[in-house]
Amino acid sequence: MADGLILHEYAASGNCYKVRLTAALLGRSLERREYDIMKGETRTPEFLAGVNANGRIPVLQAGDRFIPESNAACFYLADGTPLVPGDRFERADMLRWMFWEQYNHEPNVATLRFWTGWVGLDNLTDAQRAQLPAKRAAGEAALALMDEHLAGRPWFVGGGATLADIALYAYTHVAGGGGFRLADYPNIGAWLDRVAATPGYVSMDA
Amino acid sequence: MADGLILHEYAASGNCYKVRLTAALLGRSLERREYDIMKGETRTPEFLAGVNANGRIPVLQAGDRFIPESNAACFYLADGTPLVPGDRFERADMLRWMFWEQYNHEPNVATLRFWTGWVGLDNLTDAQRAQLPAKRAAGEAALALMDEHLAGRPWFVGGGATLADIALYAYTHVAGGGGFRLADYPNIGAWLDRVAATPGYVSMDA
Repeated sequence: MADGLILHEYAASGNCYKVRLTAALLGRSLERREYDIMKGETRTPEFLAGVNANGRIPVLQAGDRFIPESNAACFYLADGTPLVPGDRFERADMLRWMFWEQYNHEPNVATLRFWTGWVGLDNLTDAQRAQLPAKRAAGEAALALMDEHLAGRPWFVGGGATLADIALYAYTHVAGGGGFRLADYPNIGAWLDRVAATPGYVSMDA
Repeated sequence: MADGLILHEYAASGNCYKVRLTAALLGRSLERREYDIMKGETRTPEFLAGVNANGRIPVLQAGDRFIPESNAACFYLADGTPLVPGDRFERADMLRWMFWEQYNHEPNVATLRFWTGWVGLDNLTDAQRAQLPAKRAAGEAALALMDEHLAGRPWFVGGGATLADIALYAYTHVAGGGGFRLADYPNIGAWLDRVAATPGYVSMDA
């Protein structure tokens, strides 16, 4: 049973995995609908009119309502559960890391993985190729900031796993696919193990 | 009286203005501390160690705690007020637009304003110059999506102003500074007027 929730997704996307991992940790089931982004299946007139005018996945569908943006979909699922802190400061601090993830981490760590493993580095446009050094440096800076934050802290916010951990786990644990060396970040390594040991955890390829 | 809140900012930044506008609409006062980002004042060892390890403004300080990321700071201020919807779907939908703003709008609309008005288009690096066409197109697409969403809707989410409107207003109303023609987006124009007529509104240069 799918709880009335449908995830419009491309399974190999870390942004889509965030929503699946959140649902799994909460014991919620999702019906999954796959779109091949490499074939433009999220840019069809039907998708733009009926699912997301922004032409992107994931989109979480709850009944006849749609929630684009991975971190917003996770928030919808987890609102009122321990994955969203009850304390006002901690709730804002969780969102701080989720906004940071979309601005400083995803456009670098996830994009280099996509360019490396899907587009192919030999197929980049000149404009994309010109961005490689900056994205490499910004991705390393993002991982270094995470590693520093996790020194002596088990979780990003407060005393347990929150959506901040889920949002950051998704692309961090596969950062090697973009040429990042996770072995250089020992605190991240220990934290990845903690996330993977959380009750209800599902892997990205599940 | 400053309510115990300190905003570490660069006043001309739309991201910083979001926090001031949220506080003003809520009747909260902020003590303001200015940093000249053009002189690297947010990258000093003192700033990185004491305010934000990510080297960016705004940062909202509440007592001895710090909240980086503009949209998270706005959420901290507005949590529990009508600027954050009480309905679970609308709350997630508000966050959807705020995440979209940081991913699809700010890196294009705000960055072109910054490159045009602060860095100077003649001073861009080759890598930046190569991104101009893509950022122009993505910025226009973001404005077009907003204009389409606002057709027949007064606010981004639900029946009144929320943080989604504040987050999107900040860089949209000065998009002309990045070479965007707001006159091409009539629904945005009407919505900008509605935001500016909200009780408590303060302008960016206040």
